[in-house]
This record gives sequence, structure tokens and C-alpha cells, in this order.
Amino acid sequence: MVFITPHHVGVSVADLEASIAWYERMLGFTLDERVEIAAIPARIAFLKRGAFRIELFEVAGAAPLPDDRRAPNKDLRTHGTKHLAFSTPDVPALVKDLKARGADVAMEAIIQGNPVAFVRDNTGNLIEFVTEAAFQ
Amino acid sequence: MVFITPHHVGVSVADLEASIAWYERMLGFTLDERVEIAAIPARIAFLKRGAFRIELFEVAGAAPLPDDRRAPNKDLRTHGTKHLAFSTPDVPALVKDLKARGADVAMEAIIQGNPVAFVRDNTGNLIEFVTEAAFQ
Repeated sequence: MVFITPHHVGVSVADLEASIAWYERMLGFTLDERVEIAAIPARIAFLKRGAFRIELFEVAGAAPLPDDRRAPNKDLRTHGTKHLAFSTPDVPALVKDLKARGADVAMEAIIQGNPVAFVRDNTGNLIEFVTEAAFQ
Repeated sequence: MVFITPHHVGVSVADLEASIAWYERMLGFTLDERVEIAAIPARIAFLKRGAFRIELFEVAGAAPLPDDRRAPNKDLRTHGTKHLAFSTPDVPALVKDLKARGADVAMEAIIQGNPVAFVRDNTGNLIEFVTEAAFQ
């Protein structure tokens, strides 16, 4: 049996400083560590919230997010790792709060009787919000 | 302050049943729930390990994983949500074990003195392994 625990999701972004600020302001992450990896090359920031991290990469000259990755259902029509999702007690209340603070809401839906929402970060990356009981 | 906890990462795969089997066999996830969402349309499986889930989507006719998404550094040269990463106490030992069980290893490296590895799932999606102390 392997021993593993979720550690982070890597996200390639357009502007590292703007993205650090977005995740801090919108989702309450805090900057944990900065790294530079010459082999990519990339400027990296690990953001932390509890035991989980988001690893932001800024790669000079990187291609922009493909347009279909901005829409939850279209994004799934190409294989790959897609959205990161968080559980929150009240999805509509959180979305209302994020909207009031300027977040870009991509989708609000009721799936199997439960509210689900997708928000785009400042690069356009999709982040989903669900209520955990929906899937238990 | 928003209240959120990591819930899942969504992954679009080529063959739902083969991917369920891969994540069960290689990483010890268990099938938690199956869902069909007609609006995408997709067949979905939630796999669970502790409090964290992977949501596998099979979308008929989906495009294959872009080639550059199979290589960790190339993958970062397009903006977007990229690899899911797990912490494990001994990365080389885990990689050795996964290799022996047929896993496709994309990269083994020492980054800032710490072993890091990327493995591809059966669709080609990158999964990273680190040791948490590396980033604390």
C-alpha cells in the first residue's frame, strides 16, 4: 500500500505577482515559499492553506490559456488534468462574496440537486466549488 | 474569510474503467460514486482517498492529451492547471514500487536537494511526488 497525501496542484500563470495576490485576496492562501527552477526555467511561488498548496509557475514566453479551458464543459473535451475543486459549506453565499470582490464567475449550476460553481482565477484557470455532502 | 477545503481535482481521461483501475491499483484510491452529467455529456467517477477525491471524466469523442502535457517542463509552457502532486515519505522508494507495477515514469530529479518524480497515469496525465519536508 502506498502512503501518499495530497500536497499541491501546479498552475502555470501569466503574472506571478498578480496571481499570488489573487489567491491571497480571493481564497485566503498565504505565500509559503519562492523558488526558481533554471531547468524550466520558471519563477515559482508555493501558496499554502492548511496542509494544501498551490504551486504557481511563471514561465517567460508561455502560451496563453487555450480558450476552451475557460469553460468548464468545453475544457473536459480534451483529455488532461482540469479544475481544482474546493468544498465549502454554502456555495451560493461564497460565489456572491467572490463576485462582490470582483471574481469572474464561469458557471453556476445545480447538479443532482446540489449547487456547484466555477470561478476563473486572474489567468482564466477554472476553480470549482462544491459542498462535500453532495458527494457523500 | 472564506471557508474552503480541497475536495478534488477533475481529470478528463480516455477510458473511464481503465482509469478507475489505474488509480485503484497504483495509488490506492477507491471508487466512491458514479455520476452521469448529460449537459457535458460525460460519464464520471469520483475516486476517494481519505478526504480527497479525483473526479474522472470520460467524454465521448474528446481530443487526446496534447503531447506537451506529457512532459513536466513543456506542460508549464502553456498557462493552465497542470499536475496534481502528492507528498510521500520516500519518493525514490515509491517510484521504484510504481515502476515495478508498470507505471510510466516521466521524470526523476533532485530539486533543491530533494527527490521529486513525475509519473504518467494511463491517459498520460502527470502526477508528481514530493516529500513534504522539502517545502516546509
